[in-house]
Amino acid sequence: MQKPHITLIGLGLIGSSLGLALKQGGLAAHISGFARTNETRARAAELGFVDTVYESAEEAVQKADIVFINTPISAMGRVAQAIAPHMRAGAIVTDTGSVKQAVIELIQPALPVGVHFVPAHPVAGTEHSGPDAGFADLFKDRWCILTPTQKTDSSAIDTIKTLWRALGSQVELMDAAHHDLALAVTSHLPHLIAYNMVHTAAARERVLQDEVVKFSAGGFRDFTRIAASNPIMWRDVFLYNQKAILDILARFTDDLAALRAMIESQNGEELEVLFSRTRSIRHAIIDAGQEITAPDFGRRKAAQNKTDKD
Amino acid sequence: MQKPHITLIGLGLIGSSLGLALKQGGLAAHISGFARTNETRARAAELGFVDTVYESAEEAVQKADIVFINTPISAMGRVAQAIAPHMRAGAIVTDTGSVKQAVIELIQPALPVGVHFVPAHPVAGTEHSGPDAGFADLFKDRWCILTPTQKTDSSAIDTIKTLWRALGSQVELMDAAHHDLALAVTSHLPHLIAYNMVHTAAARERVLQDEVVKFSAGGFRDFTRIAASNPIMWRDVFLYNQKAILDILARFTDDLAALRAMIESQNGEELEVLFSRTRSIRHAIIDAGQEITAPDFGRRKAAQNKTDKD
Repeated sequence: MQKPHITLIGLGLIGSSLGLALKQGGLAAHISGFARTNETRARAAELGFVDTVYESAEEAVQKADIVFINTPISAMGRVAQAIAPHMRAGAIVTDTGSVKQAVIELIQPALPVGVHFVPAHPVAGTEHSGPDAGFADLFKDRWCILTPTQKTDSSAIDTIKTLWRALGSQVELMDAAHHDLALAVTSHLPHLIAYNMVHTAAARERVLQDEVVKFSAGGFRDFTRIAASNPIMWRDVFLYNQKAILDILARFTDDLAALRAMIESQNGEELEVLFSRTRSIRHAIIDAGQEITAPDFGRRKAAQNKTDKD
Repeated sequence: MQKPHITLIGLGLIGSSLGLALKQGGLAAHISGFARTNETRARAAELGFVDTVYESAEEAVQKADIVFINTPISAMGRVAQAIAPHMRAGAIVTDTGSVKQAVIELIQPALPVGVHFVPAHPVAGTEHSGPDAGFADLFKDRWCILTPTQKTDSSAIDTIKTLWRALGSQVELMDAAHHDLALAVTSHLPHLIAYNMVHTAAARERVLQDEVVKFSAGGFRDFTRIAASNPIMWRDVFLYNQKAILDILARFTDDLAALRAMIESQNGEELEVLFSRTRSIRHAIIDAGQEITAPDFGRRKAAQNKTDKD
């Protein structure tokens, strides 16, 4: 296959990392790009991770074989509607959103027959945002989950699968509803809790501000890193995966009330049982991680493991 | 000053790390030790991080200038009572517990006049436990918080301060009540929440077990590491710092309910404001971390940063 003309809509952490990785791998004949703000467009042109920066999404996609939509989820429907009339027949639209059912509903109906949509979620990110935050290895050894529907063109799926593998990712196919449930547990709830933890600890405990900073290595610091992720991206995740997140949050809240009651009643036995169980779950995860193909399971470079976009 | 005879009561992660660090620094004339189980005592003798392993705490302390009590908090009162009649006049007892007010109440009254108690908390640990988990650098560039009372002998404070500095730690003095409040926020609540998160996600979501493992890099994995910490040590932290933990937990729960309501009512504006605020707190912490003496603030070796004993 000839190298594709690729268009990146959205040039933040994910868009810039895609541009850098595509260029490093020599995977695109040409990379065009568009971002909403003048500032980001100017910076993208300076940094050179796209070949041509356009003033509108409509112009940017006109020669595209593959379009990546890397905007916050709430903008994806608008982008799809804007670009739809300007796409070549046979072109592929894909995305990088962290929620998949809502994204399918936003993008799929906007596209004309003959333009294929392959929903995708690269489970990769950092707590930094913007065009300067990107790096070519962001997707290396990470998972990329594709959630095609029954109608999705199978050769379009293959094209996107091959492209993500070329970017260094492991590709998994999954039903969109199952994706949204699984990621609510492994990523969305952890982020919600981290945001809440930092809000409680740092925003409300002004008297302890110095100590919160000084002794943050005692556990709190990890939460602050997760809670530094892109506010708009995460706002959208919580709004667009609302049901799955509220379900798992309800369980979390029930469990926390039970744990609180154990502390209140000084029930050391039950606490110990619960803490021993969570410990063994960790060990099971590590054991499994050594057997299954879990690429970066073992806490490599912490700075890159996290979690803007996870 | 002559090198002290040092006794370690409790030979798990902290005791073994102390033994190794004391030996590496040539800081003790002799290290004696005691642990509750035959197994730990035998392993400590094999590993050689103590010079003499005794069958009872009473015997172990008889020649001691300094005794470190490194047991779970619930055992500390018993240990203090057992060793009290066997201590030399002028000897110092110190501890490594993560809660300070309760520890002072447990140990101080048990000791005779002339035996000094210096309460201490090295804010260091990993998720591993036992005599094999120790390493000499555990305390290097970490904080050690001393919480002497008004009655504490000032030369005993100096001795323990000097010793912790020789072990590589930065020493901070603080009121015990303030310590318990600050650590409830920066360490105890984060651990409680992590235990609860892992319990909710992994124990209750059996249908998602594979995905929880596979996509744990999306945020969940960090929680499993914290939640793999020593169950007995942490049971005791929650029981013995009950009040401060329940206070901050109540605030966390209130904040979480408010956050839940924002998601339920699709209040994107408020979500974005809250997430932007937590992000700026992170940045403030990083900025402060570069100016104050925050030894390992910048995410060095992740495996050692965590959090058994934090």
